[in-house]
Amino acid sequence: MLHLYTAKGTCGRATLIALEEAGADFDLTIVRFAEEQQKTEAFLAMNPHGRVPVLVTDQGVLTESPALLAYVAELYPDAGLMPTDPFGRAQVNSIMAYLCATVHPAHAHIRRGSRWADDPAAIAELTRKGPEVVEATIRTIEDKLTGDWLVGDRMTIADIYLFTVANWMEGDGIDIDTLPRIRDHRARIAARPATQRALAKEMPQ
Amino acid sequence: MLHLYTAKGTCGRATLIALEEAGADFDLTIVRFAEEQQKTEAFLAMNPHGRVPVLVTDQGVLTESPALLAYVAELYPDAGLMPTDPFGRAQVNSIMAYLCATVHPAHAHIRRGSRWADDPAAIAELTRKGPEVVEATIRTIEDKLTGDWLVGDRMTIADIYLFTVANWMEGDGIDIDTLPRIRDHRARIAARPATQRALAKEMPQ
Ligand SMILES: N[C@@H](CCC(=O)N[C@@H](CS)C(=O)NCC(=O)O)C(=O)O
Ligand SMILES: N[C@@H](CCC(=O)N[C@@H](CS)C(=O)NCC(=O)O)C(=O)O
Repeated sequence: MLHLYTAKGTCGRATLIALEEAGADFDLTIVRFAEEQQKTEAFLAMNPHGRVPVLVTDQGVLTESPALLAYVAELYPDAGLMPTDPFGRAQVNSIMAYLCATVHPAHAHIRRGSRWADDPAAIAELTRKGPEVVEATIRTIEDKLTGDWLVGDRMTIADIYLFTVANWMEGDGIDIDTLPRIRDHRARIAARPATQRALAKEMPQ
Repeated sequence: MLHLYTAKGTCGRATLIALEEAGADFDLTIVRFAEEQQKTEAFLAMNPHGRVPVLVTDQGVLTESPALLAYVAELYPDAGLMPTDPFGRAQVNSIMAYLCATVHPAHAHIRRGSRWADDPAAIAELTRKGPEVVEATIRTIEDKLTGDWLVGDRMTIADIYLFTVANWMEGDGIDIDTLPRIRDHRARIAARPATQRALAKEMPQ
């Protein structure tokens, strides 16, 4: 049995949606960041990084969104969340790595600058420049998004991950109408029953 | 035919080593950062991010180290660079995502702070705190490295990626002897003929 730990609105939402799309049977814990539950001893024993998402499996604990997403897609191949050809899979992996390593960290600089600086003035500078960096880094995805989906002609885990990151844009001070393809892509995923089930499960229990 | 673009000492080294381990037939271009070749129009047409590595394939262009590494492992299964079971693969993907999204960006703050800040004092603060962040983020990998290899009982693309990042430690002001398992792991990979061929190919042509 899989057990997902995520928190409301975080990157862990992508794995939650993927599990719903896959029709997986899983347990879910919504970690409350407001109460700093990700910093408790019990949570850190599971994930020393103190972050979500965490996926507990019968074989052990897994972390990192791209790994969790690819694992869910592999466990539930009938859901068709990953292309079946190596090049298509590489394109999906490429977009996921870019979201994880470039767009997500750009976003993190807005509110979590203390990861990279101690000086309050420097932290404020990271917050100030953050929206410009998020906008510039996500724009290369906007440019790539010429059809309904990022890779091939059906939704993959890369689309689900983009949806999750795209939900941060307004909070990051970015006008979503300046990213019209991502805006419409987001609406397309928001309308899916699996997404709606996932968002409902994120609400306080 | 595959064509890899990388630059000396960068994260692209991992893909170069993986191609050598796989015994792949490929073309190679060493991009010269000193001449800012990654910012030329021709390079940006290939990769709008202006970064290496880039892998040009018959089906199109791929970027992002974890995607390139997984693609090489998949094209050359006989090299055994990726576990054959889903959980092992997820563990490899997890470590690669962590190196790409957490350790590599920590390192980038030391010399490339202008990605996230304009104010020179803030950039200097990122440079100052950088080594401490690199050390803290890579230590969770040190803790995981209880055997010869990161996942299972043979070398995978996660090990090759770690080797590449571990080579930055001295330049980042970190005493490699404070990371003894990573130091020994690095020596183990450095001794392999494929690594030696890759390093020789990085030299100016
Ligand atoms: N590279 C990781 C990033 C995980 C991450 O940064 N999660 C954030 C939420 S989006 C978190 O747990 N933050 C809690 C904290 O910093 O205390 C992934 O993609 O899963
Ligand atoms: N997430 C990318 C990062 C690529 C990257 O940042 N490459 C660096 C070298 S390690 C680069 O090309 N820098 C050139 C520059 O910033 O101008 C990956 O893992 O491939």
